[in-house]
Order: sequence, then structure tokens, then C-alpha cells
Amino acid sequence: MKKGIAILGSTGSIGTQALDVIDHHPGRFRVVALAAGRQVERLAEQALRFRPALLSVADADAAAALRALLLAEAGDYRPEIAWGREGLIRAATHPESGLVLTSVVGAMGVEPTLAAIEAGKDIALANKETLVAAGELVTAAAQARGVKLLPVDSEHSAIFQSLAGADPGSVRRILLTASGGPFRGRKDLTGVTREEALRHPRWTMGAKVTIDSATLMNKALEMIEAHWLFGVPMEQIEVIVHPQSILHSAVEFCDGNIIAQLGPTDMRLPIQYALCYPERCRGFVEPLDLIALGALTFERPDEETFPSLRYARRAVTMGGTMPAVLNAANEVAVQRFLAGEIPFTGIFQLVAGVMDRHDPVQRPDLAAILAADRWARDAAREQPVRM
Amino acid sequence: MKKGIAILGSTGSIGTQALDVIDHHPGRFRVVALAAGRQVERLAEQALRFRPALLSVADADAAAALRALLLAEAGDYRPEIAWGREGLIRAATHPESGLVLTSVVGAMGVEPTLAAIEAGKDIALANKETLVAAGELVTAAAQARGVKLLPVDSEHSAIFQSLAGADPGSVRRILLTASGGPFRGRKDLTGVTREEALRHPRWTMGAKVTIDSATLMNKALEMIEAHWLFGVPMEQIEVIVHPQSILHSAVEFCDGNIIAQLGPTDMRLPIQYALCYPERCRGFVEPLDLIALGALTFERPDEETFPSLRYARRAVTMGGTMPAVLNAANEVAVQRFLAGEIPFTGIFQLVAGVMDRHDPVQRPDLAAILAADRWARDAAREQPVRM
Repeated sequence: MKKGIAILGSTGSIGTQALDVIDHHPGRFRVVALAAGRQVERLAEQALRFRPALLSVADADAAAALRALLLAEAGDYRPEIAWGREGLIRAATHPESGLVLTSVVGAMGVEPTLAAIEAGKDIALANKETLVAAGELVTAAAQARGVKLLPVDSEHSAIFQSLAGADPGSVRRILLTASGGPFRGRKDLTGVTREEALRHPRWTMGAKVTIDSATLMNKALEMIEAHWLFGVPMEQIEVIVHPQSILHSAVEFCDGNIIAQLGPTDMRLPIQYALCYPERCRGFVEPLDLIALGALTFERPDEETFPSLRYARRAVTMGGTMPAVLNAANEVAVQRFLAGEIPFTGIFQLVAGVMDRHDPVQRPDLAAILAADRWARDAAREQPVRM
Repeated sequence: MKKGIAILGSTGSIGTQALDVIDHHPGRFRVVALAAGRQVERLAEQALRFRPALLSVADADAAAALRALLLAEAGDYRPEIAWGREGLIRAATHPESGLVLTSVVGAMGVEPTLAAIEAGKDIALANKETLVAAGELVTAAAQARGVKLLPVDSEHSAIFQSLAGADPGSVRRILLTASGGPFRGRKDLTGVTREEALRHPRWTMGAKVTIDSATLMNKALEMIEAHWLFGVPMEQIEVIVHPQSILHSAVEFCDGNIIAQLGPTDMRLPIQYALCYPERCRGFVEPLDLIALGALTFERPDEETFPSLRYARRAVTMGGTMPAVLNAANEVAVQRFLAGEIPFTGIFQLVAGVMDRHDPVQRPDLAAILAADRWARDAAREQPVRM
């Protein structure tokens, strides 16, 4: 039987690649719902190709534009069109899906992910902010409902595959690899431009993730994500810079054996792994040629120049709503950097400044997390930054 | 409850390191039988430390010498002392063992391994010649008896751990790594001395294995071993030279993901893994520091200069008793090289020559395998070699 899939964020980088994976496996999947923001033309193309029963977009205007596009070309295909928060939740809980891919960007992924879990859907999680902001809540809900949280990040997919179901108690360390981003080796980040920061050496990704990769904030968020996803304490999660991005992360077991996943730098691999799990479907991506690679190297991250990893440890130590605040402040900081309002190093200043002013609520419910998220966004928007 | 262990070949490199592992895990194992050859002093020391109920040595003279040594020092400890083929089989089938470590060298491991399997013992297999010579027989017996074959070779332990129980049908390739031995990069092996060949760059091992590593015959035998152990066709087993010996082998799955095991070059890791399986016991070996390593590199093996891998493929294609003949001819060739009778390149000549003269018996039983083994030894002893 075909696996019913809903994709939240279908027009983004991960969503588009997921549909490419689905396209390469005819007969295996059925796309039942697609949710996007305002890229209605792209969504209309996807809808015509995959014919899901439900489409959702950012707002009523986008829904009207989508409806007009489909009327012109859709023939007898007449999907439901929803919008806004309610539309996203409907896509997340569509009765015909077994698996929901949450690839929306940012903390807006928390609520639909929780809704999907409560509806008993397995989750292919590409929205790391969900676990960063609401890790305790989301992992507890998944456990209570007996649904799987399948990582789509290449690093977490590598760890998940390396663990292969092993008891977290047998883990000595998680070795989370980082490309180091475009500024690896630099000791001074003054004057970094938007264009430089968007030029990632290894991965083609959305703008937010690319900037997070340049600040190592991506790795900071991934540490927190790994902490919740695999139930391993932060002090057992070590970030290692591996500029070639071939070894996508590893697990060191208590007996000294390290199990690692290696592969080409192509997100369709971890996406396919999560969509097909527990099976391994035949891959269509060019296989990795270890011999053609040259050398694999590993370095310690520079936490002086790139303080993001420290912020992650501090956020988890402080606990409660602090990781949500770290994440929200960073989202706004990245927007402000991309808009030219603050310098690159202002991202660190802004995140640290907002965290300093937050008094975390412990064991927060969804409302407390969303309130902390809103507070941190406002605080980050208003905080002055040295230019 | 303590796991009862019998060790065949306890005074060799693997046997000694296995006892070191056992020593580091007090309360977990009980050594019930130790079998060795003629190193009676070392065996006596081991016996006094671990107090197994049964000891076995090469022959009646060695047994007498061992008895005399123990009488002088053993106090109230009075083990049974057996010898020869019968003693080895008794050690392999001792009623109090649950796991038998077969670390004798060469084809003499086949018979006791089969006996242990038939007695329902799980096997920690350090004797690769057992699977090379009698792979079909041994794997069929293990399956029929429901016992586990746990690899102790670092490469096969890496593959076993990387597979983590996955279906062989999901495997695209096994990537068997090789250090390349001391002569990696050389195009001419004329004039190689015994001392040069015994100087392995990465691993400290017995003389036979060290020479096999220098000819790449070790990797040829390991290809055949992997073929039987993991049920993967030879054409899906690829040897990759990895001079640093950190990535101990890998599995490429059909979806393009590669799972690999990395670790320090210390045989106590795979030994401990096999002894503790399915648990992972706490390790005592210095952990691998990826950052301190420098670069990991991968090369294609030079099958012109080192034709051993081709012999392995040919032996499996010919099938039946041919792999046993490859192995036996190689054992004699290595002895003759170590004795100074033939040059290093004579090992290749001799193995190829003996294989050329063998007409393999298909689906051989143990008697046919042992007969082919004897025939090949005689043939290899008598075959003239160009000096």
C-alpha cells in the first residue's frame, strides 16, 4: 500500500527535494497534503504533478491566487484549499497521511508538528527549531502517542542510522560534524557581507540555514536537537569540524567503537531515508566515491570566534524556555542581518543579549513556549546592535 | 551470570589480547577451556591466572611439560590436560562454555569450529581460514544449529557493526578497507626481505597475518570471509586501501548511505565486541581522537603488483574446494618465505601455480575440504619457484 505523505513547507528547499525523492519512487508514496507559504506558482505546479487532496498557503490572498492558477489548468482535479495556521494544522493532521514531513522554517513548525503527533502521524522532522524550542514537549508527546520522530537533517539522520536502535545508555559521545561554514579559519568576522555569508562551501540550502551555518548557530541548534532526539546529555555531544562534509556525524559507543554515516552532500539521501524508514529504498543519487574524495579531515571548532555552541550549552543548562528564546532571537537576528540592519557579528550580540534578559519558565507548555518565542522576537527586533 | 568462554589458540596474539579483555571485565566472563600449541610456559601462566577446567596443547610431550609446570605452582588448582586434535575438539565443545573464540592460525581451525557449532556454541571467529576453506559448510551448520558467528577481524567486526542486523538484500557494496601493508605504492616487489615484510605499519599481529597483509592475501582471504559471513556476492565486495587503518570497513546500502566503523588500531576492540555481544561493554582502550588523526585517505588497490584479490575472486568463482586450496597453498608459501626458501613474489607464483593444478570438488564435505587442503599443502611444498 502506498504511504500517505503530508509535506509542510513543500516549496522550500527540503520540500522540493522531498517531492523529487517521491517522484523517483513511483508507486511507493501518495502525497495527500501540501502546505506552503506564498510561493503559489510553485505550489500549483507541485499540486498538478502530485494531486494532493489538500493544499494550504499562508493566507486568504495566497489561497485565492492559488485557486485562480489551478482553475486555469487543473482539469478535473479539485483540491481543497486552506490557509493560515488552521490550514497548516489541517495539512499536518490530514486523515490519509501516515507520515508528515515538517520542513517549514523556524518556530512556526512547533504547533503543526505537535498536532501531527497527537493525530498519530510519524514525523519526518526537517524543522530543527521544533525540537530546539519544544524538545521536552515534542519528545514526550511522541513517546506518549507511540509515533516515530525521524530526523531529516543530514547530521541527525547520520546519528540515527549509526545508533541503529541502540540504547542511549551505550553511547559515550555523539560526534556532530560541521562543515565549518564559509568563514572557517577566520579569526575576525568584522565586515562579513550578506553575499559572503550566503556562499556555503558544501550544501545548497535555504538562506536562513545557510546563515546559521556561517555562524555555527546551525550546529548549536543541532546540538539541542540531538540532545532531545537521542536522549543524550549535552556534555556528551561534541561538535567536530569536518570541512569535506562527507562523514555526516557519528556515534562513539561506550566500548570505543565509532559508527559513522558517510555519503554525498545531497539532502535527498536523508530525506529518502526518513520517508522510506524502516525500509531502505533504492537510491538514485550518484554514489559516494571514497577514492575520488581526497582526504577527510577533522578539526576542533573555534568557539572564541563562533560562540554559538556555548550559547546552546548555556540554553540547555538554563533549561525551560531558554532554548526557544535562543532560537527566536537567532531567527530575528538572521532576518535583520539579511535585511542589512545589523552586521554579521551582530547576530551573536543580539542572541546573547536577548538570552541575558530572559528568565526561563521551567517545564513550559506550548503556550509558555510560544509566549517566550514572541517575547524573544520582540526583544531581538528592538535590541540595539553595535555596527 | 558469567559467560563461559573457551579460547582455541590462547597463547597467540588474539588469544592473549582476548584474555586481556576478559581481565578488564571482572565478573563478566569465566574462562572454562584454553587450547594452545607448544607455548606451555605462557599457557601455564594463563591457566594460573584464569583457572580453566580444561587445558589442551599440541601433543603428549607438551602436555607433560605443562603438567610439570603446573604441579610446581598450581596449589589446589588441578585442570584436566588434553592434547592433539582430540584435545582441541574437547576444548571447543566444553559443556560449560557458551562462546568459543577460535583464534588458532590456519585451516586447522575448521574442524574444532565445526565441532563447537554442532555443540551449540556461539563462535567468536578470529580464524578467517575457517570461512575461507569451509565457508559454505560452516555457515550452513551455524544456521542449522542457530548459533551466532561473531567476527573478530577488525574489518568484519566493522562490517557486522555497520550492518547492525540489516538484510543483506539492502547492501549495495561492502567496502573492505586495507592498510595496504608495508609495500603500498611499490611497483616491484623483487628482493623484499623477511624483515621488511614483517614490519607492518599499523597493526601488531602474528607473523602469518603480517606477511598476508604485505601480500594483500589477508584482504583476499577477508573478501572470501565477508562473502560467507554476510551472504554478499564477491562482486559487491570492494577492497579500498586506507593507509591510516582508522575506518575499519563500511557498508554501502542500496539507498546510497554508507555506514562505517572507525576506531583505534587495537584488536582488543573487535575482540571485546565479539565477547560481549549483543551488549557493548565499557571499553578500556584509549579512545580515538579524530582531530589528532590528521587526514583519512582512500586509494584503489594495485592488483597488478599484488594479484591476491584476483586469486580470491577466481577461487570463489571456481567454487567448491578452490578457496581451501588457495588458503592452504598460501599457508605453505608464507612458511617457505619465512624459512628463506622462496622470495616474496614466490608467494604469488606458488599460490597461482597450485590453484592452476586443482580441479575443485563442488559442494565438498569436511573430508573433501581437508583432502584438498592436504593436497594443496603437498603441492605447495613441492612446487619449484623461480628465485
